[in-house]
Amino acid sequence: MQTPSPSARPHVVIIGCGFGGLEAARKLQRADVDVTVIDKTNHHLFQPLLYQVATAGLAAPSIAAPVRALFRKQANVTTLLAEVTGIDPAARTVQLADGSQVAYDHLIVAAGATHSYFGHDEWAPAAPGLKTLADAFEIRRRVLMSFETAETTADPERRRALLTFVVIGAGPTGVEMAGTLAEIAKHTLAGEFRRIDPGSAQVLLVEGGPRVLQAMPESLSQKALEQLERLGVEVRLNARVTAIDNAGLEVQTGGGPDGAPLQSYRIPSSCVVWAAGVAASPLGRLLGNATGVECDRAGRIKVEPDLSLAGHPEISVVGDLAAAMSHAPGKPPKPVPGVSPGAKQAGRAAAANILRRLAGQPTVPFRYADYGNLATIGRNSAVVDLGTPFGPLRFSGRPAWLFWLFAHAYFLIGFRNRVVVMWDWASAYWSFQRNARVVADVQGRSES
Amino acid sequence: MQTPSPSARPHVVIIGCGFGGLEAARKLQRADVDVTVIDKTNHHLFQPLLYQVATAGLAAPSIAAPVRALFRKQANVTTLLAEVTGIDPAARTVQLADGSQVAYDHLIVAAGATHSYFGHDEWAPAAPGLKTLADAFEIRRRVLMSFETAETTADPERRRALLTFVVIGAGPTGVEMAGTLAEIAKHTLAGEFRRIDPGSAQVLLVEGGPRVLQAMPESLSQKALEQLERLGVEVRLNARVTAIDNAGLEVQTGGGPDGAPLQSYRIPSSCVVWAAGVAASPLGRLLGNATGVECDRAGRIKVEPDLSLAGHPEISVVGDLAAAMSHAPGKPPKPVPGVSPGAKQAGRAAAANILRRLAGQPTVPFRYADYGNLATIGRNSAVVDLGTPFGPLRFSGRPAWLFWLFAHAYFLIGFRNRVVVMWDWASAYWSFQRNARVVADVQGRSES
Repeated sequence: MQTPSPSARPHVVIIGCGFGGLEAARKLQRADVDVTVIDKTNHHLFQPLLYQVATAGLAAPSIAAPVRALFRKQANVTTLLAEVTGIDPAARTVQLADGSQVAYDHLIVAAGATHSYFGHDEWAPAAPGLKTLADAFEIRRRVLMSFETAETTADPERRRALLTFVVIGAGPTGVEMAGTLAEIAKHTLAGEFRRIDPGSAQVLLVEGGPRVLQAMPESLSQKALEQLERLGVEVRLNARVTAIDNAGLEVQTGGGPDGAPLQSYRIPSSCVVWAAGVAASPLGRLLGNATGVECDRAGRIKVEPDLSLAGHPEISVVGDLAAAMSHAPGKPPKPVPGVSPGAKQAGRAAAANILRRLAGQPTVPFRYADYGNLATIGRNSAVVDLGTPFGPLRFSGRPAWLFWLFAHAYFLIGFRNRVVVMWDWASAYWSFQRNARVVADVQGRSES
Repeated sequence: MQTPSPSARPHVVIIGCGFGGLEAARKLQRADVDVTVIDKTNHHLFQPLLYQVATAGLAAPSIAAPVRALFRKQANVTTLLAEVTGIDPAARTVQLADGSQVAYDHLIVAAGATHSYFGHDEWAPAAPGLKTLADAFEIRRRVLMSFETAETTADPERRRALLTFVVIGAGPTGVEMAGTLAEIAKHTLAGEFRRIDPGSAQVLLVEGGPRVLQAMPESLSQKALEQLERLGVEVRLNARVTAIDNAGLEVQTGGGPDGAPLQSYRIPSSCVVWAAGVAASPLGRLLGNATGVECDRAGRIKVEPDLSLAGHPEISVVGDLAAAMSHAPGKPPKPVPGVSPGAKQAGRAAAANILRRLAGQPTVPFRYADYGNLATIGRNSAVVDLGTPFGPLRFSGRPAWLFWLFAHAYFLIGFRNRVVVMWDWASAYWSFQRNARVVADVQGRSES
């Protein structure tokens, strides 16, 4: 069916209820507009903690809040659980997978990103990425089932492959995954198996670049590397993945300007996690084609300083789908990083600009307030890089870890989640246990 | 591979780590035996609260504890995640799905039950039952997606079918499901939809017999019926299901000795839950064929007073897989009901009899201590029937509900679970919200 604006008020349609979409809708709370939020899942996902669902530390409901419940008290929001298959900027309509259309006066596209295999989509079954709850459950299943299968496997070679965990990509997600996997092997499962020693499991972190956490200053990359190694993670830098299959992967090193010889070797592994590449949602290119606006190599669409599209001031794009720049007065524009504060700020800014347009005022360029960067690695291990008026404040180890912990618990959506997550973390810290070691379907048709 | 007993000590193999298997293994904690626990999942499931996972009140990890972690400190237990495909009483081995075998000196079979469609297995896709976490996730998905789809459906007939929820079978699970579904429709989702009124949803409880909770005394059945109707559940008694498909079900009434006319009608519904029939695990008949011991109509194998099999004192069967009798001195034997206390007591008794045999002592007949029966219906609604030395103590309503609540929280495995469950229940009670309204995969390839 055709969905008209529920009233004569301007109709703002928001595609995606991640950080960007949620903040945009909230910004419009008291505005005299109708808002329709369209998401293809029923929940807003707190993605910074998704790796903890994948590593059995948290239950899914702790980091996922029903979209509908978030807007229960915001009467001007209608929620649609639907997949967007197209946007028609000329007709100002959004097409849904069920064949229906939603008309808009203003559109905010916040459809986010998915993982990218750099043209090797055939790697996906052997090396799942981590973007959705379903992804997290699949990785959780693979990790736990690797230990289980190793316990009943007599062949030492196969057992070795089952106890070799490989994380590809040493960005924040890859570093968190690798550190946590090492913790699971060394601590969580200690003493639970009778035939294998889970502590003998190998956790490899394979990175194509010369250091981990490349978005961080070099000194913190070094700290993170040391902490990873202390947790038992083997880090392979300057190592490019050239093939992945169900039995393992192939890695190439050298051949660069430093003159190191080109070498290739194979790592047998039954559990490979992809944390290397991110690509914008396909809606980016679709919108680019429809409006004639350029996309960058990662599929992100280029936006104007006010986050709208050139020639289409009624369409804004925020979050991981946008190639956006931050415009501080008197400084050259800087790219906005693909982190949650960037998406949240842009969501609010795009909504504010819509309100300005409705009031007949000029829009304002987006300025990203960068409060810094932080990444956790494992128990008592993290790195923090804060911007302060007195210059950067950098620290690592346990203080950084505590900072990370409270920052993430603070930003979690919903009071219930915060309490349960803090409880789970506290009990995990003291007991070395993880509270969500549940596989609903060991055969893995995908699951809980 | 062949799994021999890890030492020269007697090897006790336990199939299934539900209530019966878990208690049996624990009873053997200090015994000079080796124990191998085989389960086809990685978790012990607290089944009395499974309906709360299905109705989005609890996260799966709250009611599921990893089997391995439960036995971490019990050094004589080896855990195997494996499916048992056969038992060879002559060779005293258990066959696993991967082709390997496990030899035993003593065997406790506690493989439990599954749902039975009374010869209509073709109904299963349209009316999932509730025995495993995967079942619970599937029902959660169907319930939540029915409301979501109704919100985007214009056709009033289809919308009505989407908002008609049918639970078949008014035993404890059916009553809990129906009561909770009514609560979700009337309270949890109130105010969250803009096009449909979730409160207009119909929840039907269809029962073939003349009353709900037939294991309860008639006065409590009547109380339960009143409480169900107060919550908004429409109860159809003496109504036999004759067909189920994806669009609804057919129900027949009358034709009985009371002279009521035979009538047949159709209920259009997109969400049907099967809570009517239980059948023993197929291992029952398999074991019956191999030992020549008889099974009853539900596939439960008949056991001797000491829970062993006739002619095979080294094999015991406990829990829902056993047709067991309780032997109180001076009283005629009484069937043991298929409830968790029955399985737990039988598990302990079977293990104790193994220890007696090892010590050269005679085994002891099983005596079931019946502390009563309780069932919850919904907010402030439950019925309790306790046996006391002064006769039965029966109560219903809020006191019964509080009693049910604390009893279930008390018996939950693991301290973490108890705290998180109590927190979820308390917040749900005050806010009318449910904390696990998450569907990981809206397309439903099965999930979390």
